Amino acid sequence: MCAPFFGHSVVLDLSADFRIQDPALFEASYNTAPPRPDLLDTAVYGLSEINHEQIKSADLIAVPGCYPTATLLPLIPPAAAGLVRGTAVVNALSGISGAGRKAKIELLYVERTENLAPYLPGATHRHWGEIKQGLDHSGTELDLVFTPHLVPVKQGMLVTTVIDLSPGATADTVRESLQQAYAGKPCIHLLHNTLPETRMVRGTNRCVIALQEDRGRLMLFSAIDNLIKGAAGQAVQNMNIRFGLPETCGLPLSGEV
Amino acid sequence: MCAPFFGHSVVLDLSADFRIQDPALFEASYNTAPPRPDLLDTAVYGLSEINHEQIKSADLIAVPGCYPTATLLPLIPPAAAGLVRGTAVVNALSGISGAGRKAKIELLYVERTENLAPYLPGATHRHWGEIKQGLDHSGTELDLVFTPHLVPVKQGMLVTTVIDLSPGATADTVRESLQQAYAGKPCIHLLHNTLPETRMVRGTNRCVIALQEDRGRLMLFSAIDNLIKGAAGQAVQNMNIRFGLPETCGLPLSGEV
Amino acid sequence: MCAPFFGHSVVLDLSADFRIQDPALFEASYNTAPPRPDLLDTAVYGLSEINHEQIKSADLIAVPGCYPTATLLPLIPPAAAGLVRGTAVVNALSGISGAGRKAKIELLYVERTENLAPYLPGATHRHWGEIKQGLDHSGTELDLVFTPHLVPVKQGMLVTTVIDLSPGATADTVRESLQQAYAGKPCIHLLHNTLPETRMVRGTNRCVIALQEDRGRLMLFSAIDNLIKGAAGQAVQNMNIRFGLPETCGLPLSGEV
Amino acid sequence: MCAPFFGHSVVLDLSADFRIQDPALFEASYNTAPPRPDLLDTAVYGLSEINHEQIKSADLIAVPGCYPTATLLPLIPPAAAGLVRGTAVVNALSGISGAGRKAKIELLYVERTENLAPYLPGATHRHWGEIKQGLDHSGTELDLVFTPHLVPVKQGMLVTTVIDLSPGATADTVRESLQQAYAGKPCIHLLHNTLPETRMVRGTNRCVIALQEDRGRLMLFSAIDNLIKGAAGQAVQNMNIRFGLPETCGLPLSGEV
Repeated sequence: MCAPFFGHSVVLDLSADFRIQDPALFEASYNTAPPRPDLLDTAVYGLSEINHEQIKSADLIAVPGCYPTATLLPLIPPAAAGLVRGTAVVNALSGISGAGRKAKIELLYVERTENLAPYLPGATHRHWGEIKQGLDHSGTELDLVFTPHLVPVKQGMLVTTVIDLSPGATADTVRESLQQAYAGKPCIHLLHNTLPETRMVRGTNRCVIALQEDRGRLMLFSAIDNLIKGAAGQAVQNMNIRFGLPETCGLPLSGEV
Repeated sequence: MCAPFFGHSVVLDLSADFRIQDPALFEASYNTAPPRPDLLDTAVYGLSEINHEQIKSADLIAVPGCYPTATLLPLIPPAAAGLVRGTAVVNALSGISGAGRKAKIELLYVERTENLAPYLPGATHRHWGEIKQGLDHSGTELDLVFTPHLVPVKQGMLVTTVIDLSPGATADTVRESLQQAYAGKPCIHLLHNTLPETRMVRGTNRCVIALQEDRGRLMLFSAIDNLIKGAAGQAVQNMNIRFGLPETCGLPLSGEV
Repeated sequence: MCAPFFGHSVVLDLSADFRIQDPALFEASYNTAPPRPDLLDTAVYGLSEINHEQIKSADLIAVPGCYPTATLLPLIPPAAAGLVRGTAVVNALSGISGAGRKAKIELLYVERTENLAPYLPGATHRHWGEIKQGLDHSGTELDLVFTPHLVPVKQGMLVTTVIDLSPGATADTVRESLQQAYAGKPCIHLLHNTLPETRMVRGTNRCVIALQEDRGRLMLFSAIDNLIKGAAGQAVQNMNIRFGLPETCGLPLSGEV
Repeated sequence: MCAPFFGHSVVLDLSADFRIQDPALFEASYNTAPPRPDLLDTAVYGLSEINHEQIKSADLIAVPGCYPTATLLPLIPPAAAGLVRGTAVVNALSGISGAGRKAKIELLYVERTENLAPYLPGATHRHWGEIKQGLDHSGTELDLVFTPHLVPVKQGMLVTTVIDLSPGATADTVRESLQQAYAGKPCIHLLHNTLPETRMVRGTNRCVIALQEDRGRLMLFSAIDNLIKGAAGQAVQNMNIRFGLPETCGLPLSGEV
């Protein structure tokens, strides 16, 4: 069942063209209209573990950005289960490769080593809309405050999220929601009694997640390698799902020591 | 006017012994009773710009920790002015020197380079109590969620705080509160149209601050060098204030390029 | 054909106990007598590509150190062919993991980041003797000046060697000696028109080599990952050779981008 | 006493235009003719401690490059005293800022972190000619093999030189030649019983030097901050000398901890 435009091809799109399905939100995020608004409905958002069923038959897969991947994977299961409410305050740290391989002064070694910097905080970062859409699709009404930071590592992304627990929700019920959502998912690893570090996932397609309660609030921690699970690795994972291959075919799961 | 115990000496204490004045909060933070509870009332909390007047005549000055310094400097003026409310969600990034010079495996180069990690999140970090006390002293009822992270830089601390604005408060009124609080303060620099980076303050006793509004919420950004303003530099600044010397005597204000 | 002591076991020894076969040289290098001088004759020096034949039937294999591995692989073929003479001036750069995982002040992140340092130069480093022995075994009379440096990378070793060419020898004849010695060797890669960088070999069991002539002198460049080819990786390679397995079984050859 | 061309101005030139006085060597080094060959005789090579007297009255001062500064300062005194002979084998490590602030792919953080690389070895690097000229001017006939390396630090340069001792020369006589040459020189520091590390000089205009004998050969070690003593810092030092100011006026001598 292929869309006429693609003939019998399946497209895995690593660009942002089909990541946001609401044209208005797209334009707010990218300061330009979506290039092919007619295809937005066809596109499936390729967050592999969350949209596994739709990816199976999709012919146009929008591979998510790194910040949305790392943020949404721990947050969607408790959000969809109604265990959290209010505003997700998301702080993210990204390695320099997250900005791409461009000959820019601000990406030089000398500019970035021994330097910590926030950038494009709030709703001004283009990934804000993509994360917000992911939360909206989970069926809840959560707001989002998002602050990315650039820190001197080559690769790796660490996300810390704080959000209010719904009445009756606890760390245990959140943990259950994550265990249920990710049972049998080979690229998600839920930690016990320890917190994510980016070296746990370096060179792999994995996302490690931990959670903690803080006096009525939930703290979520997640780490990915922005060059793998946050980029082409997830594209390969989606391709595997789409064509019935083993989900982790060709993908590294165990990183360096 | 000296406390009898100290004779004619003035003590600048870089340890945590007198940082927290409520014995119960001290014990919750450090798992031990304060060593000299009889002196807690005498001690002045040496956050130089905030407690300038008390420091002038103090004989026991508790020099603040690095996280509280970087967090409280941007937050106390709007808090004291009633411009913010609810919960301060504080995310902090610290260079490795923040952990001290100890021969520990987890501080080795090989463990920390190319690695990002949160640690002791929530109310479990001992600086939580010190920051909370600072907010309480500002006369407001703010809650605090605090998450420190260890990132691979030698020195430098970056703090990002998200908190709800009070009705009627705006980025402008917050900016005014900061300008008023820090007028003529040589170690505080309020940025316009740019965000703090730790290299702005490396090797200096300065704190750079920026702020931004995000749909009804306030985002505060601050950076210090944890080895100077976050440690002995602030002790020297307090000494200068105490003895009537120029406040920045002996302190570097302009850092490296 | 097993030595009585080992019964039917094969020992791959990652320590230095059997790396140096001359007891006097051992003692000069380690300030202690060899622990089992009776076994020194039995031990085979496990520089995989050079001693491939002896390793096939060895029951006690002394796995080489990282500096000797990176230095000897490019140098032994031209030395054995008589193409070089005089003194090999060897400058080596090592990542911090080369010093092992010990809780020492001098290995802390804060001590090593943004810092370059030579250490134990000349014949005082314990690897001097091991490299000298390797040169002696190649049948030539070369002297050795060896200077290791500690530089802020986690893993990786780069060696630059300068030595006089013998009369009639050229870059071409040296290249031929290397091509002949390493034909069909899967872990050695001889570069053309480019120089080794440690990222070429990170996470792999490979050694990349380049050479250049400079007005009658030979310059050799080599890079390994001290954690793999410079340590346990070469032990696995030797095990594979010893037991008739494919030489690279279980060993990574293609590193990270 | 000013050259007519400059009127009453004194020019401190940080470019390479006047560093090499032999037009043929200039052209071999830079693949272009010197822009003003008529002024080459007028220019004084601004290696502050070596050419102090000429700098006092110079109107055109060619400020040296970073590699020549770090290499020549330890080597010229023993060379001028005839204590060394043969070929100086120089290995140099440079921080990334040594390449200048250019938006080039090869200078990106991601390209350089965790990576070690030699570049332009032998007589192909443009600083080879400048160093060779410095040795020639010391009155000796020394050859030079020069290998620069790029290593992941922001700033700092470390040079290791190996050269044969002349008959009768020892580490002691070399030390004496250095002590004599640099007596009263505030920017040179000769170490005893320890080796240079670049952190010793970071942020300063100093050069630290150490030496060691290795069985008839001399090993010289030196470190500078390529951004200060290796660049504009030395220009300021020359300006001070030229105008009779205290030599270290405006120059940092004590670096960061």
